[in-house]
Amino acid sequence: MKIVFHGQNAANFRQGFEQLVAPEHQILDLSDALDQAGERAHYETADVVIGIKLNDSMPVPSQARLFHAPAAGTDAVNTTLLPAQCTLANCFGHENAIAEYVIAALLMRHVPLARADQDLRRQRWTYWAGRPTALRTELGSQTIGLLGFGHIAQTVALRAKAMGMRVHVANRSPIQHPTVDQSWTLDALHEFMGSADAVVVSLPLTDNTQGLVDARAIAAMRADAVLMNVGRGAVIEEKALYDALASRQIGGAVIDTWYQYPTPTQAECAPSQYDFAALDNVLMTPHMSGWTSGTVRRRQETLAENIGRLSRGEALINVLHGPR
Amino acid sequence: MKIVFHGQNAANFRQGFEQLVAPEHQILDLSDALDQAGERAHYETADVVIGIKLNDSMPVPSQARLFHAPAAGTDAVNTTLLPAQCTLANCFGHENAIAEYVIAALLMRHVPLARADQDLRRQRWTYWAGRPTALRTELGSQTIGLLGFGHIAQTVALRAKAMGMRVHVANRSPIQHPTVDQSWTLDALHEFMGSADAVVVSLPLTDNTQGLVDARAIAAMRADAVLMNVGRGAVIEEKALYDALASRQIGGAVIDTWYQYPTPTQAECAPSQYDFAALDNVLMTPHMSGWTSGTVRRRQETLAENIGRLSRGEALINVLHGPR
Repeated sequence: MKIVFHGQNAANFRQGFEQLVAPEHQILDLSDALDQAGERAHYETADVVIGIKLNDSMPVPSQARLFHAPAAGTDAVNTTLLPAQCTLANCFGHENAIAEYVIAALLMRHVPLARADQDLRRQRWTYWAGRPTALRTELGSQTIGLLGFGHIAQTVALRAKAMGMRVHVANRSPIQHPTVDQSWTLDALHEFMGSADAVVVSLPLTDNTQGLVDARAIAAMRADAVLMNVGRGAVIEEKALYDALASRQIGGAVIDTWYQYPTPTQAECAPSQYDFAALDNVLMTPHMSGWTSGTVRRRQETLAENIGRLSRGEALINVLHGPR
Repeated sequence: MKIVFHGQNAANFRQGFEQLVAPEHQILDLSDALDQAGERAHYETADVVIGIKLNDSMPVPSQARLFHAPAAGTDAVNTTLLPAQCTLANCFGHENAIAEYVIAALLMRHVPLARADQDLRRQRWTYWAGRPTALRTELGSQTIGLLGFGHIAQTVALRAKAMGMRVHVANRSPIQHPTVDQSWTLDALHEFMGSADAVVVSLPLTDNTQGLVDARAIAAMRADAVLMNVGRGAVIEEKALYDALASRQIGGAVIDTWYQYPTPTQAECAPSQYDFAALDNVLMTPHMSGWTSGTVRRRQETLAENIGRLSRGEALINVLHGPR
């Protein structure tokens, strides 16, 4: 089969890929613009396209039987442009990475390592045990609230539980799971929001989730609670989030997924129309939570698995769409 | 019974203590110096002393049936000065706090939250997913090596395992435990030291542990491994640790327990005769790892439990010494 890795994003998953699939496959690396000699023809005749984008400014991969995103989100793939015989599949494998980001960001609020180090280098024993002023709180005595309970939230739940936390979940359908202490459906969202010390949003962006966490949902949170977003920016209403932080209505936020992103022509940009950078109660990171060498390896394994299944005529995994 | 809280350290455990014990007890707060009116007499006639220090410059608590340290370490209690009928007991309850410190410090080496936040505030998307230069490593793919397997290490092991880590242990006696993947006894210390990405020392200081982690043990570590100390400073040889870091022989260190401490007359001091503050490959914190409100609460519960048992004539818990 002809397998094409399309663009910069797919290129991240290319290294060592030939070792994961049968040697008879032809593997090609194509540019984002598909404007180098022969690239367009290779794209149009590929059996498998690995890429994150398909729109009507691009050639049609008319021979493709598998369009595989090396990512979870496929919002940039216009499925109406896929040929009838083609399956669209995606990859996860980021859940361990995101769970480490979540636990690290939560622990950072309890264990003041950076400040303690800075002070001790100047011979100041600020957090030395034995004094009331140095006492810190424990993450383990708190409740984590997971909004959504997919791969990411389940992986976070396991770690949070081992840290000693109480685990609350809000989900479209009711949840029964060994790591979950209590769960709500989305019609009781506000009660859920008020039940946790840290609310972690890991929902994908859909018509049903856009703006789900609005001003009223944030107002239902505890005054000292923290709101985290590792799902998609727009699940939390942009202005409501900014206002809640600026007015110190909640304890703080940890935001990894945003409202504005760099573009090919503008590498630097603010992540929101509101000035989050002026706030001291938000930890702001650049959509990085899932990006580890482990994620790359696990996604390569998923891509190779589906290519093997396609070769053998077996049912594919992680199927989102088609064939028609 | 007459219960005395002796000194500043014990005073940390005083708040709310009357709610944890029977109302008939007399609870008194005494200064470290025992030089206020009546303090010496109260100390000498107390049934229970809560304190961390007993030496020959102090009065003898000759009526005491229980001398209870509100801490794990009792090295400042000269047991030859305890009256024959007196039991010496200690408290743990710090293991959850220390485990959070350990996991936080380990995660900090993998998830660059502070730097990412700093950069994004200046509109720089340094760690944005999708680019090879932004890839980070996962703690969960690493091996933790626990030197000692008491309360602290067992609590760390549970959390490390849930993070996905492989758990190695070195201990005086062989270990079989559901969270432990492989264990060594101390005669194979060097093999153990070379088996882990992070070696966490949680040993108490005894004649057998002093200097146990010497230059040869550190030389057995992997070149990129990190050495943590949350036990007692002198378990790791001071000069050997400094030299290994200064010469970048290992990946780094996280040191919470030290070689020099502030004294009542000198509140600020360097934690070592060597200039650790000049090194960029050590995270240095002021013996803070166990100091949380949860630790205080759990230790209060232990103190109250033993006072209840003493009142009822039952066997005490956490007994270290006596009665003779």
